[in-house]
Amino acid sequence: MENQVLERLKWLAEYGKDSQSGITRLVYSDPWLQAQHGLKNWLIQEGFSVDIDAVGNLLASIKGASQPDEVVLTGSHLDSVVNGGIYDGQYGIIGGALAIIDLLKKYGPPKKTLQLAAFAEEEGSRFPYAMWGSRSMFGLAKPEDIDGIVDTDGISMMDAMRELGYSAELSPKQNVTAFIELHIEQGSVLEKENKDIGVVSSIVGQQRFLVTVLGEPNHAGTTPMGYRRDAMKAASFMISRILTLADEAGDPLVATVGNFQLEPNISNVVPGKAIFTLDVRHTNESDLENITHLIKAEIGAIAKKQNVDVKIEAWFTSKPVPMSEKIITLLQESCERKKIPFKPMHSGAAHDSQVIAPIIPTAMIFVPSQSGISHSPLEYTDEQALEKGIEVLAEALHQLAY
Amino acid sequence: MENQVLERLKWLAEYGKDSQSGITRLVYSDPWLQAQHGLKNWLIQEGFSVDIDAVGNLLASIKGASQPDEVVLTGSHLDSVVNGGIYDGQYGIIGGALAIIDLLKKYGPPKKTLQLAAFAEEEGSRFPYAMWGSRSMFGLAKPEDIDGIVDTDGISMMDAMRELGYSAELSPKQNVTAFIELHIEQGSVLEKENKDIGVVSSIVGQQRFLVTVLGEPNHAGTTPMGYRRDAMKAASFMISRILTLADEAGDPLVATVGNFQLEPNISNVVPGKAIFTLDVRHTNESDLENITHLIKAEIGAIAKKQNVDVKIEAWFTSKPVPMSEKIITLLQESCERKKIPFKPMHSGAAHDSQVIAPIIPTAMIFVPSQSGISHSPLEYTDEQALEKGIEVLAEALHQLAY
Repeated sequence: MENQVLERLKWLAEYGKDSQSGITRLVYSDPWLQAQHGLKNWLIQEGFSVDIDAVGNLLASIKGASQPDEVVLTGSHLDSVVNGGIYDGQYGIIGGALAIIDLLKKYGPPKKTLQLAAFAEEEGSRFPYAMWGSRSMFGLAKPEDIDGIVDTDGISMMDAMRELGYSAELSPKQNVTAFIELHIEQGSVLEKENKDIGVVSSIVGQQRFLVTVLGEPNHAGTTPMGYRRDAMKAASFMISRILTLADEAGDPLVATVGNFQLEPNISNVVPGKAIFTLDVRHTNESDLENITHLIKAEIGAIAKKQNVDVKIEAWFTSKPVPMSEKIITLLQESCERKKIPFKPMHSGAAHDSQVIAPIIPTAMIFVPSQSGISHSPLEYTDEQALEKGIEVLAEALHQLAY
Repeated sequence: MENQVLERLKWLAEYGKDSQSGITRLVYSDPWLQAQHGLKNWLIQEGFSVDIDAVGNLLASIKGASQPDEVVLTGSHLDSVVNGGIYDGQYGIIGGALAIIDLLKKYGPPKKTLQLAAFAEEEGSRFPYAMWGSRSMFGLAKPEDIDGIVDTDGISMMDAMRELGYSAELSPKQNVTAFIELHIEQGSVLEKENKDIGVVSSIVGQQRFLVTVLGEPNHAGTTPMGYRRDAMKAASFMISRILTLADEAGDPLVATVGNFQLEPNISNVVPGKAIFTLDVRHTNESDLENITHLIKAEIGAIAKKQNVDVKIEAWFTSKPVPMSEKIITLLQESCERKKIPFKPMHSGAAHDSQVIAPIIPTAMIFVPSQSGISHSPLEYTDEQALEKGIEVLAEALHQLAY
């Protein structure tokens, strides 16, 4: 395995290498298809039997001896964001393959089938349907769900699939008994706390809102303070209050106002309208409900006090997803045995694992992301850290499949 | 005068009428030149002798009998903003002309010369040099000041003037003894307080700043609250604090954050950078200094507490300008005699009067602006209110020139 992981990541990253030193490998595009073919050829050489399913998920198996056939699954997604890095998604595929290859060398054929998935699509960067690959594989998405979904060039998702010979007609996987996804953290907690491994206990739920504050545009010179209905002022009170509440609540809650628009947005006009996004995440469903309920009440109270109107629209919701206690324990024990410093933590980002976890026992292994940077060519994880992640994964797969 | 003012405003507004029901009459443009010619012809018909000076200011005089020749001046600006209304600027010209015509009818020739100015340019909407006309007329601007100043089409201000035969070489006016500018309020104070006339005591000073807040962009899901350097959060604390200070200070202080930009401005990324404008106005120079000093200190303290960097750049400063006590008294006494409800008030907007007031005794008369709207085709003042303004102006000119 030594020195292989980085080499293999760079090799796979050649498919979709873009002009800005990153990877742009959108689902069902030419570079994506070439990556799938390249991966298939390599895995066949390594002794896997490889299938491509009806949505383009690649499934590479090492058949187990036991009857009935049970599958222990690992892997991650093959698609990338626009101008992404070489670790996000790729690491779970390459790392999973190397872990299985290592187990075969050390222990020979497994009892349960070891299977590697390269999910067709997770990011939702080409079509607005994130995690389509894993959802389809486990019966959580159907062809009719993507009716009318098109990319920015107007190409329909179904046409893009048909072009490559995929029907999208898929029977859900029935025989998978466990799934472990290896991934970069995409945050800086492991780096800051000097840990090599994050054992993910849950993936956060999210509630996203669009908040529109309506005041009255007025001349900045001729309108006394007392006659104003200043949308910027009201918004600044709301945002400072929301983020103070989030600070007070602390981990695992996070709240972000990432997008802010003002109208008319002219320096000498009192703003009449402010629109901002609010992204709230928590690992506990009722805590998430409670805090968003409180935030909405505070926004309403501030609007009233500031004499402005406010509209709060929910536009995305996902529930928190706990990982499998059994696999979490198994991963932590592996780290302890190997004396690898680890941290039990949640994932603040979305992953294929959150789709799969409610159906079969699932867990995730994180490795540090330098400065927490992700979705960028600057994404970086040190090779030793990558190898440690693979080592912990291999140990867990061994326990589950042998 | 009856029914004339609105008719004449509409007549003058034909020069530069735009496709969106407003006036677009930028200095030295064709419609601006046509308006100047039209105005000149009308005023000559009404018995004025009309000169156009070397920057394009129109000066229409009714010669006084006294020696040496002393001038009592009224008027306002001929240029408009893009898609402006028919009252801003125009009203001071048409109203001034009608006031003088009325005085001539009632009282015959004046002792001092009565002069009407249609200033070439006040708004700075074509070239970034506001109040060029009045500044030039009183020796406060010189041809070399506009070296390198061009409009958005790359036409230099000097070339635009030369095209019309203006040299910009101008001797400052020496014999003006008083100036009164009639103008719409461009705010809603008179309307809200049910007053017909505003007697302007001073024009506010302004300090404008650009505030740049530098934090760190981070993933909205994977970055715990405690690890963030959130530029949006820091900015919201700064803005809510600034505007609270302004509320507490109250009239005549106003503070406005009218423009706000966030980077990267993506809903699921903690903002790394926020840039906002701050516009602070007050009628008293030391109060203006004190409050901006306090605001800057508070911004610095919040930046420190929020662990972000901040840069505050001053990009525009003007001092408050008091109007002439003598003319203020004269205007207030006129209102009282005529039982016209008036309000002593300051101007929160800039006017030619602030250029002229430090040199010769100057005052302004405001009439109400419906809903405070200005610089828009929706600008509106009721005709009776327009007539009252002219009446008060005529009374003051009578006292000063007869």
